[in-house]
Amino acid sequence: MKILVLNSGSSSVKFQLRNSGCEELICKGLIERIGEKGGAVHIKFPDGRQHDEELDLEDHIKALDYLLKVLVKPELDILGSLSEIDAVGHRVVHGGESYSKSVLLNDEALKTIDELSGLAPLHNPPNLKGILACREILPNAPQVGVFDTAFHQTMPQSSFMYAIPRELYDKFGVRRYGFHGTSHSFIHTRARKLSGLDDKPSKIATAHLGNGCSIAAVLNGEVLDTSMGFTPLEGLVMGTRPGDIDPALISFLVEKGYELSEIMKLLQKKSGLLGLSNGLSNDMRTLLEKSERDKNARLAFEVFCYRLKKYIGAYAAALGGLDVLVFSGGIGEGSAVVRNETCRGLEFLGIEIDEEKNNDGSGKEALISKDSSNVKVYVIPTNEELMIAKETELIVGDIQNSQ
Amino acid sequence: MKILVLNSGSSSVKFQLRNSGCEELICKGLIERIGEKGGAVHIKFPDGRQHDEELDLEDHIKALDYLLKVLVKPELDILGSLSEIDAVGHRVVHGGESYSKSVLLNDEALKTIDELSGLAPLHNPPNLKGILACREILPNAPQVGVFDTAFHQTMPQSSFMYAIPRELYDKFGVRRYGFHGTSHSFIHTRARKLSGLDDKPSKIATAHLGNGCSIAAVLNGEVLDTSMGFTPLEGLVMGTRPGDIDPALISFLVEKGYELSEIMKLLQKKSGLLGLSNGLSNDMRTLLEKSERDKNARLAFEVFCYRLKKYIGAYAAALGGLDVLVFSGGIGEGSAVVRNETCRGLEFLGIEIDEEKNNDGSGKEALISKDSSNVKVYVIPTNEELMIAKETELIVGDIQNSQ
Repeated sequence: MKILVLNSGSSSVKFQLRNSGCEELICKGLIERIGEKGGAVHIKFPDGRQHDEELDLEDHIKALDYLLKVLVKPELDILGSLSEIDAVGHRVVHGGESYSKSVLLNDEALKTIDELSGLAPLHNPPNLKGILACREILPNAPQVGVFDTAFHQTMPQSSFMYAIPRELYDKFGVRRYGFHGTSHSFIHTRARKLSGLDDKPSKIATAHLGNGCSIAAVLNGEVLDTSMGFTPLEGLVMGTRPGDIDPALISFLVEKGYELSEIMKLLQKKSGLLGLSNGLSNDMRTLLEKSERDKNARLAFEVFCYRLKKYIGAYAAALGGLDVLVFSGGIGEGSAVVRNETCRGLEFLGIEIDEEKNNDGSGKEALISKDSSNVKVYVIPTNEELMIAKETELIVGDIQNSQ
Repeated sequence: MKILVLNSGSSSVKFQLRNSGCEELICKGLIERIGEKGGAVHIKFPDGRQHDEELDLEDHIKALDYLLKVLVKPELDILGSLSEIDAVGHRVVHGGESYSKSVLLNDEALKTIDELSGLAPLHNPPNLKGILACREILPNAPQVGVFDTAFHQTMPQSSFMYAIPRELYDKFGVRRYGFHGTSHSFIHTRARKLSGLDDKPSKIATAHLGNGCSIAAVLNGEVLDTSMGFTPLEGLVMGTRPGDIDPALISFLVEKGYELSEIMKLLQKKSGLLGLSNGLSNDMRTLLEKSERDKNARLAFEVFCYRLKKYIGAYAAALGGLDVLVFSGGIGEGSAVVRNETCRGLEFLGIEIDEEKNNDGSGKEALISKDSSNVKVYVIPTNEELMIAKETELIVGDIQNSQ
């Protein structure tokens, strides 16, 4: 089975083409500047080869149509014909309370995703554009939606309700949803397997630390809590987002003369590591390089780790203890220093990092805790596209079996 | 030494008159409706007697002048003359970064408190009115300011900095300050004494749970972190305030047509326990009474305890373990059910509640953990007025000694 995985943004689409069993990546790439001048398709192959084409792309249909034409070019030797694409798996950001699992994208599902656009105005509409374009161009390939929010739908009310007037939940669906669910699901499943807790009770905290960051508390396979909330602004410190802040500072800044839209832009684009480092960088690698001489860079690193440390403690409390802690995402997989600083002082929780294993544990699956550590600490590279492909294969397989 | 303790609000002043060593309460009470019709002074005596007088009170000077006239009425037998008042201790909400300790209120201090009004526009100005009135009426009594924020000024940058653009701190002082400091200081000092850790290293979490709620992590006598932040809106779920929320829900509600002022009012007055219980009550006792039949009342209780449980875990992580946990404030002192639910599942942290001691431990100083518990858990009634009186006595004593 060959599966096309799509992550459609407003002016770009990331894609992967995966082969049977999903483990094999055929190629991956990016369509960019859709609806603008200078449209382009970039394709990368696992062996390092690269192929780029340029063409102005009017809309998502034109863009995906063009991508598919490139994919069947004989000289590229990717696909013989489009009929080889057995299914398409779409990343969809918001499934609201409607989807706790991936789903075949029929008319009803498309309608629901459209209705949920109010909760994710920047994400669901372009996701939908990608789906509609694929429907038109690949009418025979089943399409599956894999939601960022789905894995977190097991959260109990005590985790997902804000302490605000109840009517805001009833009327508008204001509650904690959580995001990065596909990644948390992927690394949680790997962690459970690696630690031998597949079918056993398990208390696992998964930290996805990329440019966006979130942590989830997973009890016996079901999410009990997660740090992103109504939107991906809440929770941990991120590249350019602040995570938890006092909401009253918004009205304070309005009184100081800031426009609300300007404040929201500050919180989305200029906060987090970038804000703490006084505009130096949103990239942890840069901050760590400069942290010896630049005290703001050092502070950004410290706050990032300190807040994460507190969430680990909070989720251990929520879970009633901890069996496994996972670091993932660009920072989680890449930075031994962040992992070490985060876990420093958590020996009382049973977390003991093995310095050597940790220093050697970046960029690959690795156990980085000591043999004596009660909590197993892993680095697990996340792979959301692989997860989307697997989910798609599973759902398409189920449909074929039931026919 | 007789000390008058004042907590001046915009239209009311709470007071206590305390005797030598501060432990003895002579009388306490309330001046209400200052600047309105129907002004009144209510005085309560430790033996249960009560004395009420009514008079329209134009401003804080008139109000305090009237209070003092009542206090020297021969038939009440409180004070022979005003010269018996040796000092006045004022609660001041915001000391910003200027005050990490209580201070003699000289001209410079008054100027600073005035300048800090931008950070506490609802509190510092009336606090200042009370101080200015006392200066005029009791010109010979030294006046001392005791700040809600002072105890938390030991927080390191990694605790107090938000991950927002650095310039917001430099320009406007946007950072985490914390409040309820007088209460946290009081119960922390008692806890350290009770647990025999006076002069030993100590990791203590103090939970002040009243209508406002906050928790502090105190390491060797110095606050490491606390849950209220830039304002008292952040942190734990409270009577009518939400504690931590996703700040993006403010802009979401603005897009839905709400005015910002209306949203801030919702967050100040209609959230917390009141919001979660769908307007039923902001009083934990009422919610507990109704929680068997009313699922929103039950939810409010559950979210309150769950969020507190997570903060205890987070602060244990911040402290690198926990020696002592303290419950205080109306809910913390009064509700064995809340204490029990909060600590349930925290045995892995070394917290073991003794059910019998807990049920018997309300409204008084009590150890409620099992003998085997690694963490000592106490109920300690808070007494902010006593603390203010003691601070005042200390500072006045220091001045007298240095003269």
